[in-house]
Amino acid sequence: MTDQDRDRIYQSFAAQSMMQTLGAELITVEDGQVRIAAPILPGSRQQQGFGHAGLTFSIGDSAAGYAALTVLPRGQEVVTAEIKINLLAPARGDRLIATGRVVKPGNRLCVVTSEVHAETDGELTLIAILQGTMVPVPT
Amino acid sequence: MTDQDRDRIYQSFAAQSMMQTLGAELITVEDGQVRIAAPILPGSRQQQGFGHAGLTFSIGDSAAGYAALTVLPRGQEVVTAEIKINLLAPARGDRLIATGRVVKPGNRLCVVTSEVHAETDGELTLIAILQGTMVPVPT
Amino acid sequence: MTDQDRDRIYQSFAAQSMMQTLGAELITVEDGQVRIAAPILPGSRQQQGFGHAGLTFSIGDSAAGYAALTVLPRGQEVVTAEIKINLLAPARGDRLIATGRVVKPGNRLCVVTSEVHAETDGELTLIAILQGTMVPVPT
Amino acid sequence: MTDQDRDRIYQSFAAQSMMQTLGAELITVEDGQVRIAAPILPGSRQQQGFGHAGLTFSIGDSAAGYAALTVLPRGQEVVTAEIKINLLAPARGDRLIATGRVVKPGNRLCVVTSEVHAETDGELTLIAILQGTMVPVPT
Repeated sequence: MTDQDRDRIYQSFAAQSMMQTLGAELITVEDGQVRIAAPILPGSRQQQGFGHAGLTFSIGDSAAGYAALTVLPRGQEVVTAEIKINLLAPARGDRLIATGRVVKPGNRLCVVTSEVHAETDGELTLIAILQGTMVPVPT
Repeated sequence: MTDQDRDRIYQSFAAQSMMQTLGAELITVEDGQVRIAAPILPGSRQQQGFGHAGLTFSIGDSAAGYAALTVLPRGQEVVTAEIKINLLAPARGDRLIATGRVVKPGNRLCVVTSEVHAETDGELTLIAILQGTMVPVPT
Repeated sequence: MTDQDRDRIYQSFAAQSMMQTLGAELITVEDGQVRIAAPILPGSRQQQGFGHAGLTFSIGDSAAGYAALTVLPRGQEVVTAEIKINLLAPARGDRLIATGRVVKPGNRLCVVTSEVHAETDGELTLIAILQGTMVPVPT
Repeated sequence: MTDQDRDRIYQSFAAQSMMQTLGAELITVEDGQVRIAAPILPGSRQQQGFGHAGLTFSIGDSAAGYAALTVLPRGQEVVTAEIKINLLAPARGDRLIATGRVVKPGNRLCVVTSEVHAETDGELTLIAILQGTMVPVPT
């Protein structure tokens, strides 16, 4: 993966205002694997005070989408065709870390998974898993 | 559905700071069906300028969760066990409207669906469908 | 829908040996909607004696796939890219009836749903819902 | 895992007539992981002659269910609440092998995944991934 390839991922991420609203940042970009972290901001909570499923979903989905983008030719973007999330534990802790991975690359469909962990004092708890399909679209 | 029942839904919704961040509001609460609307705020976008999948998911998931809550005894909350979203069209327009419905109520598991439409000049376009499972938890 | 269009669905269905193994038959074929019925054969059971989830899935998935095929140009087949099933009640009764419907047609992806009912003495109980994506492929 | 625990899995599997119809056999049973293999019988095909999605689903779902059962107290069975399958490649080869795993055990809900490989001349190709929820029920 060239610096130029990595740059296009960072540029696309920077253009997602939702990621900024959620305080999310791109922490690693490798071939077929991308990590995004986000704090549980006061404005990202559900009714019990934990992180909203929408927060966990948003970073899990974006990490999976960018993982797909790492394996596509330049001049493409991806959109989510479908994705499913199983929530395993409440989203609480210092921050959430989503790890998206490519399971099956493809020019028409790219199958991806994502895991979301909550980090507390450096310890990770798996709080959600996602499985979905990304579709390449021209930039 | 009594006013008291409806009130607890509105109170729970008001406690979800994520809904305020997204500018979402609860527009109808009926037995087994709840509607939530949200604009596509400047801070809720993906890289192409459309609404982020996380926005569509968040209101679709919350509408489905509150639909489940309308059919549960008082003193319960619900959490999402799992939910899947198929995205059909870009999220663009004046606002998004999510309609959550109960398909199968239950004390252990409540199966729900949600449809999300984009509204432009009063016309609705279906942009996403969701299918999931809500689980009752004590308040 | 012409007789010729309907014929290609029946021919494709007849070529699915799995449908014969399960005793399934195509009962209605309309634009965007297909119904398949199957008995709960002695060889289609799970460990408690009810119909196996694989039976419910197989007819639900096939009904959705053929619903997609009704809205595609001739010379195409469809394959399932992904599908999710929520099981609502045990599969028991005289027969199961799956109704597949097209939610969003498309040349690259076709989003579908399916409902499976169990019929007992003419009464229908909803036992499963499915939501998925079909992909057109050349014949 | 005691021999008695392993026996109850084999007994439950033997009671699933669908598994016999599909020619499936339980090949390994470990704590939190179960493998099921099945040939692509002449009666398990879709219209192009590959294994039907219902075959891949049936063994993937059963492997995941039995993986869940390995981590539950005795006197319980499991049923599938919901499960999603992404199909990655045609089901062709000498046999299919499904590996079910427990991601998150629980008394109310058990989150599971399953991978299905096709084996040809000893080489494995990943053809499907599943992600779902199993629910314990009394025997």
